[in-house]
Amino acid sequence: MAKEFSQKKNENFSEWFTEIIKKAELADIRYNVKGFLVFQPWSVLCMEKMYHLYEKALQRKGHKPYFFPTVIPEKNFKLESEHVKGFSPEVFWVTHGGSKKLEEKLALRPTSETAFYQMFSLWIRSWKDLPFKTYQRANIFRYETKATRPFLRSREFYWIECHCAHASEKDAFNQVKEDMRTTKEVMHDLFGLPFMFFKRPQWDKFAGAVNTYAADVLNPDGKVVQQPSTHMLGTGFSKSFDVKFSDKDEKEKYCYITCYGPAISRIFASVMIVHADDKGLVFPWNIAPLHIIIVPIGNEKELVKKASLLKEKLQNTGFDVDIDLDDSRTPGEKFYSWELKGVPLRIELGKRELQNKELTLFRRDLNKKEKIKEAELIKYINNFSKNYDLNLIKKADKLFENSITDALTIKQIMEAMENGKIARCGFCSVDKKGEKCAEVVEKETGATVRGTLLEKEEPKGKFNKCVICGKPADEIVYIARQY
Amino acid sequence: MAKEFSQKKNENFSEWFTEIIKKAELADIRYNVKGFLVFQPWSVLCMEKMYHLYEKALQRKGHKPYFFPTVIPEKNFKLESEHVKGFSPEVFWVTHGGSKKLEEKLALRPTSETAFYQMFSLWIRSWKDLPFKTYQRANIFRYETKATRPFLRSREFYWIECHCAHASEKDAFNQVKEDMRTTKEVMHDLFGLPFMFFKRPQWDKFAGAVNTYAADVLNPDGKVVQQPSTHMLGTGFSKSFDVKFSDKDEKEKYCYITCYGPAISRIFASVMIVHADDKGLVFPWNIAPLHIIIVPIGNEKELVKKASLLKEKLQNTGFDVDIDLDDSRTPGEKFYSWELKGVPLRIELGKRELQNKELTLFRRDLNKKEKIKEAELIKYINNFSKNYDLNLIKKADKLFENSITDALTIKQIMEAMENGKIARCGFCSVDKKGEKCAEVVEKETGATVRGTLLEKEEPKGKFNKCVICGKPADEIVYIARQY
Repeated sequence: MAKEFSQKKNENFSEWFTEIIKKAELADIRYNVKGFLVFQPWSVLCMEKMYHLYEKALQRKGHKPYFFPTVIPEKNFKLESEHVKGFSPEVFWVTHGGSKKLEEKLALRPTSETAFYQMFSLWIRSWKDLPFKTYQRANIFRYETKATRPFLRSREFYWIECHCAHASEKDAFNQVKEDMRTTKEVMHDLFGLPFMFFKRPQWDKFAGAVNTYAADVLNPDGKVVQQPSTHMLGTGFSKSFDVKFSDKDEKEKYCYITCYGPAISRIFASVMIVHADDKGLVFPWNIAPLHIIIVPIGNEKELVKKASLLKEKLQNTGFDVDIDLDDSRTPGEKFYSWELKGVPLRIELGKRELQNKELTLFRRDLNKKEKIKEAELIKYINNFSKNYDLNLIKKADKLFENSITDALTIKQIMEAMENGKIARCGFCSVDKKGEKCAEVVEKETGATVRGTLLEKEEPKGKFNKCVICGKPADEIVYIARQY
Repeated sequence: MAKEFSQKKNENFSEWFTEIIKKAELADIRYNVKGFLVFQPWSVLCMEKMYHLYEKALQRKGHKPYFFPTVIPEKNFKLESEHVKGFSPEVFWVTHGGSKKLEEKLALRPTSETAFYQMFSLWIRSWKDLPFKTYQRANIFRYETKATRPFLRSREFYWIECHCAHASEKDAFNQVKEDMRTTKEVMHDLFGLPFMFFKRPQWDKFAGAVNTYAADVLNPDGKVVQQPSTHMLGTGFSKSFDVKFSDKDEKEKYCYITCYGPAISRIFASVMIVHADDKGLVFPWNIAPLHIIIVPIGNEKELVKKASLLKEKLQNTGFDVDIDLDDSRTPGEKFYSWELKGVPLRIELGKRELQNKELTLFRRDLNKKEKIKEAELIKYINNFSKNYDLNLIKKADKLFENSITDALTIKQIMEAMENGKIARCGFCSVDKKGEKCAEVVEKETGATVRGTLLEKEEPKGKFNKCVICGKPADEIVYIARQY
């Protein structure tokens, strides 16, 4: 009999995370370059579906796909001074081709602003070209100095980066809001991940940005994981890269630029973490590596034949299906392993089922078995697949809503952190002048000020004073420990 | 009025190729790193569909998807001596992270044998694990010393690489044959590209392989382009990377390894080249960036509204559709530009069409207009889309078949090359001892010996002597100029 899953997500999060990656065969960390790993089929199949859904959503909103070079010349990289300061310590440099030293060092892209915008300056001419909305699916490289961890922070990861040029600051800000809606439509409605969308404090923004906005997802250990962020770059990069357009008034103006970056391999981590239960992974139907596993109970010819027919029928209906014919494992071991891997639906097919033209189904969201008539299968699954993700979303939303708590003192912030919650507080300012209070928060509680909600709340009543300095509060902020 | 397309594919191939890439906005070569380019939406949308179809075909045959790191440590790379000798001049090296020199140089993968097989040695244990069939979608880097050219040869390109381990040489060779069938199913049946699948001569094989097999596609200038190749690696890499399994007889044995690499960005070049006509690109329906363009003739509200309704209806049926509402261009200019871009079907919608509940359709394969009743549209397109690609394939096959000619003297080889054909000849040997005759061919005619067909022909009758040395022929070979 298979061993029980030894770690519990809500008790030993860190050990659980390591164990599930190994047992579900999501990634192999034994590759011999530090911080790099091999993504295995079970995660890649899911990430490919995530890419597909994200790209479709972006295309519907008018973003066009590009493939930019992975390498960026050093001179581009140096053009935007804040950007180079922020990213320089994290850049891998290509210096040689064959045995020859290259004339100029090439950065492995840690992000591609300095690649896209030099081309924007060649492509954009007139207000008619705006908004100019692009994206690329890409692998990204960062020489991380912090400890790496599979999916959450590795030296090479998989993302989508959207770069858009606009005619005005207002248009650019509307893009930020559209990015938030895209995050909602895809990350919440399709992947089932609740999040809060923050405007980050001034001391915590992207290198070269006027403002950074970002979605925080909650881990069961109470730490937040930063997921897609969107940056209002203003005209800083436009001036560095000469991205101009001729406006309706025939004057030449600099474009306002925004960028948005959902990291697919990192969102995969949140999918694992948020939906998993004590039996292992639970994948939303939309992005499950496999929808249905058929387990014949026995190896009689007629059972195997029937299973093959079922598989074919289900595949032709558009589902991803497999049969487990491994004769070295008992049915119980198979059940355990497919539950651990998070397959939404299991079909058990034994002699009795065959005789009665019935099927025993196991649904992973509720961990419940039920019997149905074989003739009803397709109808059942069509209905099931629609409701499955709604169940997961509802469960995740409820947990997330319960994780926010109000804190009026630093002691209450500490209590919130100990209970794995996000604290809502009055705060003096998220401009530079509030940085000192934020440092107190971090020093005393290990937590950081995540920012204000994009749809801003007015600090009134109990929130009218800063939780740290007691001065009148300009903002309501959310405080959490960050992964 | 728009200018005529100035170059003809069959007359000035090279200039035509440069012009079509620019006019159809396929790639921008102005990126400021030599040999690297920006792939634009019109090529990316097609390449994404190509990836999708290729990956589905590989998955059906049991290949599982992985994402391996882009970087390979120098020590891995050096483990297989022939391999390192062949690839060393082409490797880009990463030497620094931030301002620190790395402990070991990292290669940007020029191909990933030396990354995959060290993991194979960790994953493969028993004959039950075999065949172990993998693939990854990846971007690849080669510091090319030859002149680069968009899509055909650039320093970063997009491919799929399949790596498989087998229990015996026979199983490995069966994989080579399966790879050939996959090439046929995808590259010919879905992308419409005829090819010949050769076993390459011994002097023209992959660095580290026992044998190389490859598909050659013909350009209209008579040069062949090497497309997917598959390499029988034998046990060479297994021994270097310790890829062993315990066989049924409980003995430990080295795996036989094969690899197969369709280069999507390069196959895209053949798609452009093979199907284009004097008006510009012609995309197969299966992989067209856009299936249908709707051009309203006029800008009256009712026309625009009707066009939007049509678009929605067609999108809901699963087609990729757009409306051209650009008011700075005449209908004629629009027709010209969408024909140049190769959209399979154009719907023209004017007032008369609206009144008569009719539509005027233009199909790009035959460059013909026809009128249909609006009510028949979906039925028409469903039928059209099935036949469209068959038309393109038939046309391409016919051209390819007519391009092979027999040559019994070196003069006849030269004539074949001048006429843009592939020459079929008797040849002494494709083992090492035939290399001198191959050198004579190359020196005298500028052409190379491509190899023998995988399904080998016996040299009889007029082919019983080597076209160069006159000795008894062991092989029938095909000779062509290579791109």
